[in-house]
Amino acid sequence: MRDDRELIYLDGNSLGPLPVRSQARIAEVVDQDWGVGLVRSWKNWVGLPRQAGDMLAEHLLGAARGQVLVADSVTVNLYKLASAALDAQRGRDVIITDDDNFPTDRYVLQGIAAQRGCELRLLHSDIDEGLSAHTLAEALDDRVALVSLSHVAYRSGALVNMAELTDLVHRAGALTIWDLCHAVGSVPVELDAATADLAVGCTYKYVNAGPGSPAFLYVREELQNRLRQPIWGWFGQRDQFSMGPRYDPAPGIDAFATGTPQVIGTVAVEEGTRLLGEAGIDRLRAKSMALTSYLIGLADEWLTPHGFVLASPRAGQRRGGHVSLRHTEAFRISQALIREKVIGDYRTPGRLRLAPAPITTSFSDVWDALEKLRQIAADKSYDDLPTEPSVVT
Amino acid sequence: MRDDRELIYLDGNSLGPLPVRSQARIAEVVDQDWGVGLVRSWKNWVGLPRQAGDMLAEHLLGAARGQVLVADSVTVNLYKLASAALDAQRGRDVIITDDDNFPTDRYVLQGIAAQRGCELRLLHSDIDEGLSAHTLAEALDDRVALVSLSHVAYRSGALVNMAELTDLVHRAGALTIWDLCHAVGSVPVELDAATADLAVGCTYKYVNAGPGSPAFLYVREELQNRLRQPIWGWFGQRDQFSMGPRYDPAPGIDAFATGTPQVIGTVAVEEGTRLLGEAGIDRLRAKSMALTSYLIGLADEWLTPHGFVLASPRAGQRRGGHVSLRHTEAFRISQALIREKVIGDYRTPGRLRLAPAPITTSFSDVWDALEKLRQIAADKSYDDLPTEPSVVT
Repeated sequence: MRDDRELIYLDGNSLGPLPVRSQARIAEVVDQDWGVGLVRSWKNWVGLPRQAGDMLAEHLLGAARGQVLVADSVTVNLYKLASAALDAQRGRDVIITDDDNFPTDRYVLQGIAAQRGCELRLLHSDIDEGLSAHTLAEALDDRVALVSLSHVAYRSGALVNMAELTDLVHRAGALTIWDLCHAVGSVPVELDAATADLAVGCTYKYVNAGPGSPAFLYVREELQNRLRQPIWGWFGQRDQFSMGPRYDPAPGIDAFATGTPQVIGTVAVEEGTRLLGEAGIDRLRAKSMALTSYLIGLADEWLTPHGFVLASPRAGQRRGGHVSLRHTEAFRISQALIREKVIGDYRTPGRLRLAPAPITTSFSDVWDALEKLRQIAADKSYDDLPTEPSVVT
Repeated sequence: MRDDRELIYLDGNSLGPLPVRSQARIAEVVDQDWGVGLVRSWKNWVGLPRQAGDMLAEHLLGAARGQVLVADSVTVNLYKLASAALDAQRGRDVIITDDDNFPTDRYVLQGIAAQRGCELRLLHSDIDEGLSAHTLAEALDDRVALVSLSHVAYRSGALVNMAELTDLVHRAGALTIWDLCHAVGSVPVELDAATADLAVGCTYKYVNAGPGSPAFLYVREELQNRLRQPIWGWFGQRDQFSMGPRYDPAPGIDAFATGTPQVIGTVAVEEGTRLLGEAGIDRLRAKSMALTSYLIGLADEWLTPHGFVLASPRAGQRRGGHVSLRHTEAFRISQALIREKVIGDYRTPGRLRLAPAPITTSFSDVWDALEKLRQIAADKSYDDLPTEPSVVT
């Protein structure tokens, strides 16, 4: 990772930093593979989406090979998998998600529900504590086809028990689709052990694969031939370069590909995954929990007197890799913090998100960041800043 | 562009070469914008898809601003636009395409037709001469909702008259969706003048934006509010970062975005487009026609005696930027040619494609390449090579 001693970066859950090896690998792909190898390099590139998917599966997703593909964006993958799941669940016409789910998930499902005349049941989650199993259990019935939830909530960082909730959903005869955007690379994900059905996630947060790097999708092996995704593209075709007259989906996970994959982003997924794999997700998680607990401890002591309220679960095992703090001036405080070279981010309504990604963040970073927060809040040194959010992701 | 005097590259219609400025710009985006700027750089990135779209519109697509967006892949964009068009054409249940259209176009439309219970009418095009207006006219009736055609055929390079065919389609009350993959950057495209409705295209061929760079889509201004694409993602949302409860599509072309855009590929689209814009598409087209005419003249003289047959239109104004030659040993000859450091490609059945992209190809390149082809055919120096195609794109 780049070393910029002045900056404390607590926003790796929005855009992860650039790994040194990714920088070198991207330059190699651009200068050599593309620049010199030209079209001949496709023989190495054509297998990348599967190869990067298998690396994610092994190191970060708790999944056996052949179930994960790097492709498209989270939005497009969610559309593909949710559509495929609904087609496979004929006779059931309800989709469930929760009101705290990430916007693109809710929007995609709204669109699908509108197009198909399905009902979209929007469960209420506590914005700081996440979805309760009880709420989900009450909403399940034999009309439910699909349940779409985030493993780690994007705002509070609340972590739900994937195995427990998947089991509830399965008992009702429905399928699960998990959004792993804030989970992959920050908590050990156990897709196979949880008998998760489907999942999607991005790679530009904790996987550090760069701005707009491709997403991934997971389809449990026994579902791969039962489910057919709606976007029938040439990269999902069996024997693609025979360019045959009729679409004939490739066997297995490859049928969930669509068009030409972005090569540069996919090699960055490989490098980012390799880095986390070498560190080990269990060790990263242990450090992450220590970092966030330390952060919460300091916040209790230093920030509570200045109007901050913890907006994340207090129990470590119910938290992902980031912590949210509520404050009436959260937006201006987040901007004042950036001025002090500490980057977190703002999320509406009134939350400051801080993600001490364990691969790059030290305990002294957390101390320094919270000390600066304390000063800003105590001195009201955000007073000169505008109150309106600008563009952040 | 890279200077590799040994290599003659006639495959820029598959993967265009690396522009020098793109190499520098990609390095800058990776090292500085991502590596140092981190999440703060999103304020510059968020407008890229529109910005790059406007550049394509102005320099290469004959379209006014606000109608082109760089996003997703050709496959995904075709799915989005074809779905939106069919929704807007309720009461009509036929899609038309031709049997020579690029595979992913045919597959996407097959999928959409199957899902909606539409009829997909597959017109017959002459594989070497392209679609005739007469064939299209005969197939049009008041059941036709949508006609999907390629402006330049991927195999023969046959160029159809967009304005004439669009007019035919409009008279039947249907909408057009043009695939511009082999047209953009190789022939002047006049979307607005042709009153084209919808279009998609890739940027990794003549636009030289690199392997898996994002595609673009065009939606004629007056259709933008009438058409609603099916993948409702957060980048298509009005006031995206308020993360509101309900999907509310952004005005204009932005509603056709889906998920997080790939940043590196989009800046490469800008650079590639800028380069062609500086050269000027009309001047590029003039050189391209001279190059392909010269190529065909040499092929007539040198290659016809060795069993080659022209598999592209002979009239310059009916050809795009590449030329196909038929030969019973086309695959092995294409491989032997690569061994001689001349890169063209093979397309089934039995075609050698040669694309002398005018931005990088000289007349002596064409002479040298055809001279090598003549020698290979005369000496049968491909005899030791396998007869089966491997992976090419």
